[in-house]
Amino acid sequence: MSGSVFGNNIKVSTFGESHGKALGCIIDGFPAGMELCENDIQTYLDRRKPGTSAATTSRKEDDLVEILSGVFEGRTTGTPIALMIKNTSHISSDYSEIASCYRPGHADYTFDKKFGFRDYRGGGRSSGRETAARVAAGALCIKLLSLMGVKIIAYTKSIGDIEIDYSNFDENMRLSTPTCMPDQNADKRAMELISSCREQLDSIGGVVECKITNVPAGIGEPVFDKLDALLSHAIMSIGAVKAIEIGDGIKAGKSRGSENNDQFIADENGHITKMSNHSGGILGGISDGSEIILRAHIKPTPSIARPQQTVSNLGQNIELSIRGRHDPVIVPRAVVVVESMCAITLLDLMMTNMHSKADNLIRFYS
Amino acid sequence: MSGSVFGNNIKVSTFGESHGKALGCIIDGFPAGMELCENDIQTYLDRRKPGTSAATTSRKEDDLVEILSGVFEGRTTGTPIALMIKNTSHISSDYSEIASCYRPGHADYTFDKKFGFRDYRGGGRSSGRETAARVAAGALCIKLLSLMGVKIIAYTKSIGDIEIDYSNFDENMRLSTPTCMPDQNADKRAMELISSCREQLDSIGGVVECKITNVPAGIGEPVFDKLDALLSHAIMSIGAVKAIEIGDGIKAGKSRGSENNDQFIADENGHITKMSNHSGGILGGISDGSEIILRAHIKPTPSIARPQQTVSNLGQNIELSIRGRHDPVIVPRAVVVVESMCAITLLDLMMTNMHSKADNLIRFYS
Amino acid sequence: MSGSVFGNNIKVSTFGESHGKALGCIIDGFPAGMELCENDIQTYLDRRKPGTSAATTSRKEDDLVEILSGVFEGRTTGTPIALMIKNTSHISSDYSEIASCYRPGHADYTFDKKFGFRDYRGGGRSSGRETAARVAAGALCIKLLSLMGVKIIAYTKSIGDIEIDYSNFDENMRLSTPTCMPDQNADKRAMELISSCREQLDSIGGVVECKITNVPAGIGEPVFDKLDALLSHAIMSIGAVKAIEIGDGIKAGKSRGSENNDQFIADENGHITKMSNHSGGILGGISDGSEIILRAHIKPTPSIARPQQTVSNLGQNIELSIRGRHDPVIVPRAVVVVESMCAITLLDLMMTNMHSKADNLIRFYS
Amino acid sequence: MSGSVFGNNIKVSTFGESHGKALGCIIDGFPAGMELCENDIQTYLDRRKPGTSAATTSRKEDDLVEILSGVFEGRTTGTPIALMIKNTSHISSDYSEIASCYRPGHADYTFDKKFGFRDYRGGGRSSGRETAARVAAGALCIKLLSLMGVKIIAYTKSIGDIEIDYSNFDENMRLSTPTCMPDQNADKRAMELISSCREQLDSIGGVVECKITNVPAGIGEPVFDKLDALLSHAIMSIGAVKAIEIGDGIKAGKSRGSENNDQFIADENGHITKMSNHSGGILGGISDGSEIILRAHIKPTPSIARPQQTVSNLGQNIELSIRGRHDPVIVPRAVVVVESMCAITLLDLMMTNMHSKADNLIRFYS
Repeated sequence: MSGSVFGNNIKVSTFGESHGKALGCIIDGFPAGMELCENDIQTYLDRRKPGTSAATTSRKEDDLVEILSGVFEGRTTGTPIALMIKNTSHISSDYSEIASCYRPGHADYTFDKKFGFRDYRGGGRSSGRETAARVAAGALCIKLLSLMGVKIIAYTKSIGDIEIDYSNFDENMRLSTPTCMPDQNADKRAMELISSCREQLDSIGGVVECKITNVPAGIGEPVFDKLDALLSHAIMSIGAVKAIEIGDGIKAGKSRGSENNDQFIADENGHITKMSNHSGGILGGISDGSEIILRAHIKPTPSIARPQQTVSNLGQNIELSIRGRHDPVIVPRAVVVVESMCAITLLDLMMTNMHSKADNLIRFYS
Repeated sequence: MSGSVFGNNIKVSTFGESHGKALGCIIDGFPAGMELCENDIQTYLDRRKPGTSAATTSRKEDDLVEILSGVFEGRTTGTPIALMIKNTSHISSDYSEIASCYRPGHADYTFDKKFGFRDYRGGGRSSGRETAARVAAGALCIKLLSLMGVKIIAYTKSIGDIEIDYSNFDENMRLSTPTCMPDQNADKRAMELISSCREQLDSIGGVVECKITNVPAGIGEPVFDKLDALLSHAIMSIGAVKAIEIGDGIKAGKSRGSENNDQFIADENGHITKMSNHSGGILGGISDGSEIILRAHIKPTPSIARPQQTVSNLGQNIELSIRGRHDPVIVPRAVVVVESMCAITLLDLMMTNMHSKADNLIRFYS
Repeated sequence: MSGSVFGNNIKVSTFGESHGKALGCIIDGFPAGMELCENDIQTYLDRRKPGTSAATTSRKEDDLVEILSGVFEGRTTGTPIALMIKNTSHISSDYSEIASCYRPGHADYTFDKKFGFRDYRGGGRSSGRETAARVAAGALCIKLLSLMGVKIIAYTKSIGDIEIDYSNFDENMRLSTPTCMPDQNADKRAMELISSCREQLDSIGGVVECKITNVPAGIGEPVFDKLDALLSHAIMSIGAVKAIEIGDGIKAGKSRGSENNDQFIADENGHITKMSNHSGGILGGISDGSEIILRAHIKPTPSIARPQQTVSNLGQNIELSIRGRHDPVIVPRAVVVVESMCAITLLDLMMTNMHSKADNLIRFYS
Repeated sequence: MSGSVFGNNIKVSTFGESHGKALGCIIDGFPAGMELCENDIQTYLDRRKPGTSAATTSRKEDDLVEILSGVFEGRTTGTPIALMIKNTSHISSDYSEIASCYRPGHADYTFDKKFGFRDYRGGGRSSGRETAARVAAGALCIKLLSLMGVKIIAYTKSIGDIEIDYSNFDENMRLSTPTCMPDQNADKRAMELISSCREQLDSIGGVVECKITNVPAGIGEPVFDKLDALLSHAIMSIGAVKAIEIGDGIKAGKSRGSENNDQFIADENGHITKMSNHSGGILGGISDGSEIILRAHIKPTPSIARPQQTVSNLGQNIELSIRGRHDPVIVPRAVVVVESMCAITLLDLMMTNMHSKADNLIRFYS
């Protein structure tokens, strides 16, 4: 097994280290004939880009994407789409200190144990910067899904103990608030919390919520490749995510059947819906046609300026204060990554579902 | 993609419906030379077997496993190991009513939408009974892992709002209490809660916790095939699991970096450990040598005797009271399933890790 | 990687040793709603069954297939279809001698080197008997393909130097001649050759040819998963196949471009065909709508009664005369195996092709 | 399924069209710690490069490789290695004519049928130019294999009816003769044949043979992932290959068991070898420790200057004379591609084989 390839019908292979020459991905298996230009992708990368507010690092990364293959005369060709983002702005000397020590909460120690050494510049392959490649791939999938009517909306639900109020929910707000909260009031309070963390040389965690609407019933495979299982794989593979919930999630573990079950109801045309959505749009691992809801719980940025005890790669106990420009909170920049991973996963399963019935094949080839 | 095959180096293919002739699995890629007999597997199946206490259904299923291939003279041969469990005790008439209606909280509706029809007998393929095949496959992996010193222990952490007290923790107790709680006192109170639910024609959810000890540092692959991502895939694929946490889990989303980071410390021999374990034994998707901890949040049994509103497959609104013998709580029987899925996932990644360094190959073949 | 799982959308996992309890397979990902009964499969297994003529071993194997799962009310359910064939007629003492020696041309030596030991009874997992599971899985795929109009016809093209004469070609004859030749005259001469080999305590090789008609243009994926590449994988995985040709095959290596190219021609309706078919129906790895033709070259049965020099598993030089009832030629029984592997491969790729165009998805889900 | 990803433990994803911005690949799963620089790869790309002799096209392609990721301080890091080759020298106007017609022997027609349109510039994705990415990936695998003592040597065995004479065999000669024949005399005659074809506005086919030495016994998996099956998949996926043989290959289909079987013999130390090698180093799909031999039969270049009848994409019959600079024979440039595909396949299976025995795991982790 290799760890940087994701998907079945669509295979996304990503590459690149934080401070290497470039990072990017190949998307193989993407259907032919969809209009695509670099700007379709850039829009999403810009949402992940740092340096846009006090909620993110002041590092400047332009993250300009270049399409190297798979698009001809403005349309996808059905062959691999290679996307590259050159690394331009890094000053490697910023990171020289971490070459020889294991930062708490980071993968320095585990990479060294696994591979014998590591590219220590900016976290190398374990840097959150690898998610740029996921977003680039996700942008394509989001576009094709939207052509099928599917809409994926993620946003910051909470930072620390500051949570959005759904009565203030304004979907588009998530694109303009620095925290990506869809609630201007909560955003303001969360920004104050972030400021306070930064002053205390500390960082803070939070929660991203994602809603996927207009998914037809029937998507997801029984047993191991359930829609919720694959979404969990996808979301938990994003660095710093420590928990995932579908629908009622952890609340389901405290509920009674009579509370948790969603009762079905038919209208006069026999059209079936559910009277509630505790299941989060998935029953038995298969979409039930209602809104899919999930939440990713994200740990605080491990890079903090506060002194921490740790160990050098020579086994000596040392004290470390991480310098450099780091996000005080990971959550806002993770929002578009969550959308991207959901899109790749969902599109892949929607392709699979095309051959769930023998009649589908017979009709397609007749 | 097909949904009933799991793993990479080890591929587990499962089959079988609740009321079909048999269910079971093929484990392909399992290493040769391990001693194996049916009893090694039966021990684990017996832990999943219903009818053993008031916490489970009174249905009797013997779940006797038969090894059909892949074992010769008492040892695994390196070729596919097929395991079969014959279905013996089902009375299909028990379930005739559900043929024509969509039970709330079940996959009846989604299976019909996906496949056009379904095997409705006892839930067919979407029955929790499919987990018997997972447990059979898991038993082999647990055995090989234990020969490598790895120990996997799952138990019921809570049912409804009754939670274990870690100061009472008795590991072996989980094998004898009806709830699988490792705390006799909590077990007693949980059994009362279960009784009360049953009397109210209702069911209740809960949480399974799993601890994996003695995993060497270095297991798991960067980016998409992180150890926590694959464990999440594995655990969320178990029907009724609605959330998974690794280490601090959802608490991490409320924490500060200074709280969440685990600081490293070296002893006089340069041996490195962590001073805490908020990460749950995984950093950057790779095991760090400390205990791996995860929690699966499980919804209440959807089959309840209380009348529920629902819809027939002809689109008519109906009221349904589910008869038959159902578990009032899924959690106790899921404990061994969680252990099994963790074992399959972990062993697979430990195989992958054997070729993480070029020197490992050169040494192996010299 | 595990070696006994084949396919992507459809995954066929096989199990079983020559003299174990049973052999069979799980077919996962097979579309729902196709009518299926055991007899649909038995028909194909009977074509592989030995003991039907002087061209095959006199061993009696009933090879009765049992459907364990995945079929309900006479139709496939879309969930895993498990098929089992119990082993009934083996007398293990027939094979006791080979436990301790390496038969020339067999996998005894390589299995021991790989796995440390082997199930030596009748060749264990390396026995040609494993192909029964392939045929069982193939039967389902052939049935679904035929509902789409695709027809797969394999037959014996030659045995030793006796080759069929295409001017005598009678397709159905391949089902009744002992050699599976579609030419009664060639069959007669080949049977004489086989008799002569048997008298000389020897065996003989041959060639199976397969023609697949009515495949739409567009099946197969560029680069690594070309239709011809996957067919080659499939066919070369059948034990004893030592070469495969597509279309002109080895002749192409001696040809000029002007001979080998198939020129296109359009009729008055703009319908495009080729004026010849040197390519064997595949261009750039993708079906071109013309007949797909391939040939599998099969070595002689390695089990011969003639004394051979070999080595015991203790490293001693010995002389071995293989007793028991062995096919003097593998070819006739391989014919249906070739059809089966072609069917699995082709159906899998036809499923993949359903999502080659973005418009296909948009239309399917609208 | 997606068609441009190859391998299991090592996954090679390739991208790029003949006349796009760039082509290349990501190699994921490659072990850490191997020394690697661009020159290690360039050496192999230079062997594939055109314009070096009268046997190849006069087009100039520098094919300079750039390592974008996965190498740090001169060693592989265990994370994805991205390799890029920029396209520099193409004059797209050379190919404008083919935009609207289906060249005989090419994939123009099948790509249009599959994807609805195609990148027609120089054949786009179906151009032989995609093999540069295979060679780049193969170079890494060849290097690691050579560190394990495995040697892969391919060469031109024949062009048209000119075949090498093994009594003249000079291994290194294959790197200097224009035809890549390891026999200077045959090379000279083959070059005359090529000249004559070129004068006649025609092209010619040929055969590449590959020998792999020092592979330990035990590599390859039973049933579907036999070493010969995967090598066949790998080699038949190279455009223009129409047949593959292992060992005696097609000759095996005419042989008797007494001729085809390789008898075993042990020396006084109990070391076992075979007295012949008709099997080509593989028994039951697993390497037997002797030399692995295979042959790829390659069709003549389909691009010929001679007028051919064909059809436009509007369905009109036209006559086409293909202009531009084309190889009169594909074979010499395919030699290094065959080596590359063998190397990727073999290394992948050697990684799998590390976990064939339970004892291997127990020892590795103790």
